[in-house]
Amino acid sequence: MPERQSKAVFLKAYPQGMPSDADFEVRKRTVPAAGAGEMVCRTIWMSVDPYMRGRMRPDVKSYIPPFSLDEPLSGGAVAEVVESNIPDFSVGDVIVDFVGGWKEYYVSKGEQTQKVVPNLAPLPAWLGVLGMPGLTAWAGVTQIMKPKEGETLFVSGAAGAVGSVVCQLGKLRGARVVASAGSPEKIRWLKEEAGVDVALNYKDYKNAGELTKALGETAPKGVDCYFENVGGMHLEAALNCIAAGGRIALCGMISMYNNNEPEPGPPNLINLIGRGVMARGFIVSEYADKAMEFAAEVAPLVASGKIKFQQTEYDGLDKAPEAFLGLFRGDNAGKAVVRVGPDSV
Amino acid sequence: MPERQSKAVFLKAYPQGMPSDADFEVRKRTVPAAGAGEMVCRTIWMSVDPYMRGRMRPDVKSYIPPFSLDEPLSGGAVAEVVESNIPDFSVGDVIVDFVGGWKEYYVSKGEQTQKVVPNLAPLPAWLGVLGMPGLTAWAGVTQIMKPKEGETLFVSGAAGAVGSVVCQLGKLRGARVVASAGSPEKIRWLKEEAGVDVALNYKDYKNAGELTKALGETAPKGVDCYFENVGGMHLEAALNCIAAGGRIALCGMISMYNNNEPEPGPPNLINLIGRGVMARGFIVSEYADKAMEFAAEVAPLVASGKIKFQQTEYDGLDKAPEAFLGLFRGDNAGKAVVRVGPDSV
Repeated sequence: MPERQSKAVFLKAYPQGMPSDADFEVRKRTVPAAGAGEMVCRTIWMSVDPYMRGRMRPDVKSYIPPFSLDEPLSGGAVAEVVESNIPDFSVGDVIVDFVGGWKEYYVSKGEQTQKVVPNLAPLPAWLGVLGMPGLTAWAGVTQIMKPKEGETLFVSGAAGAVGSVVCQLGKLRGARVVASAGSPEKIRWLKEEAGVDVALNYKDYKNAGELTKALGETAPKGVDCYFENVGGMHLEAALNCIAAGGRIALCGMISMYNNNEPEPGPPNLINLIGRGVMARGFIVSEYADKAMEFAAEVAPLVASGKIKFQQTEYDGLDKAPEAFLGLFRGDNAGKAVVRVGPDSV
Repeated sequence: MPERQSKAVFLKAYPQGMPSDADFEVRKRTVPAAGAGEMVCRTIWMSVDPYMRGRMRPDVKSYIPPFSLDEPLSGGAVAEVVESNIPDFSVGDVIVDFVGGWKEYYVSKGEQTQKVVPNLAPLPAWLGVLGMPGLTAWAGVTQIMKPKEGETLFVSGAAGAVGSVVCQLGKLRGARVVASAGSPEKIRWLKEEAGVDVALNYKDYKNAGELTKALGETAPKGVDCYFENVGGMHLEAALNCIAAGGRIALCGMISMYNNNEPEPGPPNLINLIGRGVMARGFIVSEYADKAMEFAAEVAPLVASGKIKFQQTEYDGLDKAPEAFLGLFRGDNAGKAVVRVGPDSV
């Protein structure tokens, strides 16, 4: 088999504050033929996710190493196997993995790689509702918050890839869902499509006090469950309104990811004590062993249309930085994905 | 039966910031004879506890109502029954309850009242290691943090009524215990009597960064469990050093109780996410149904001397405000109690 020329996106420098196009560079590189126990894959769709910002800080120890400036970025992808020396994978298989993003071709050892189920949903759904963001949402609902019928569930970043699934899984469990998002179109989708009870446009509120007032008015008995994607004034308002016995799933704090200097936490953490609240931070990999249970619940709901999802598509690998930057500008409704190549060639 | 004249401590005004003697006033009042279903008790020992500061804020909604300016303060007490119209209680019984503090005589309906077990421990222990603080410590260890053999447990306020029991229950479970307290004498007691592995005098560290460095050096693999009594720089340092899969029992934040204005939270809450940490706030009443299980474990350990405890005694009801203020000045080693009357008359 021949070597292949492949475009890939590299970090030129670690971003300071909000990243910009200038921090990224598309370079050509040569992808070798598959060695023993390897396969070569062609990326069809790639994912951009907020957690990737954390990998652009070389100085921060985290659960996942920082990106290197000498290798392409990586991340979730749906890809086609074009060459294989791995018995489980054949040429033509369509797979989803955590490494094929930000590049056209790549060599894989087949680790953490799943075959997609044909015709269950459009391919990008494997990067969203049926993929890592969907499992994240499901884990927060079923393993951490465990909302009960009639309880109030507050979700920040509710129109995003994770939040939108949290909202709908909450509704399916009989919770009253209060969603927060940042545009009239997102609010409309949450109410009309995701079926939440209340959707707040957080941009209508100048600070935690105003958001607290709005949240308190719509949840007079308190917030039993809070799914945290945003941090900042959302966390402060949620802690002001949290009910006795509340459960908080801490999934992300996107409002803080581009800070150069750490931002103080909310001044009302003490409410966790007086109200007997449990707050649990998590990353999705902790629940990798529950992926089958997740799929068994969520895949049929997606197939039957009972769980709806949006995606914002960008066309071409060159657009990947723009898709990524859109995460922090609130540009993307639902899951943001980038079309890197055609479904089949 | 006659009415009785009784001294009792009243709040003159709700304190602003750090309370002072001038906020308290000892007044005489008349205690009526016991009515139907009532008994009259004579307080022997009373407890002062940090949570009482929260009841001195009339504007804050909490799990327990604020103190009224028109009634005596109340709190935990060991008392003798001197008159009884309740079948379960006889004159001469020595009981422990949550209302007899801050006064000499009082009428009780016998609610949440336990008889003390004679000769198991000195009477004030029923307000400390065998009472509410002991149950608090036990709940944090056994119901929330669940330290495993070989794990590192960090305890702030470690020489106090609650913290000292947390340390010893942690050691009994095989944890490596790192304790923080605020005087050389407390550090000595923690090492020599409570048997902790490391004791840090937090006054040696100017800020969260310095405390983080010290904690990180003594817990290079991270803090698996953190028992929070203090807040502020202790919480920030603990979050800097928390290990993946860490568990935090949020019991109190005494460093903040006298703030007039809320203080920002730590800037590193995001560590809860990346490290998959669970933080659980609690108040002891949530675990009232576990009191027997607590007593079954801890009472024999106290009786056999395997759990040690200190108490700081103040003599006379007039000293109660001073004992209370001592909580916030770090004056008290172990449990602070006030002798209100003799063991028997």
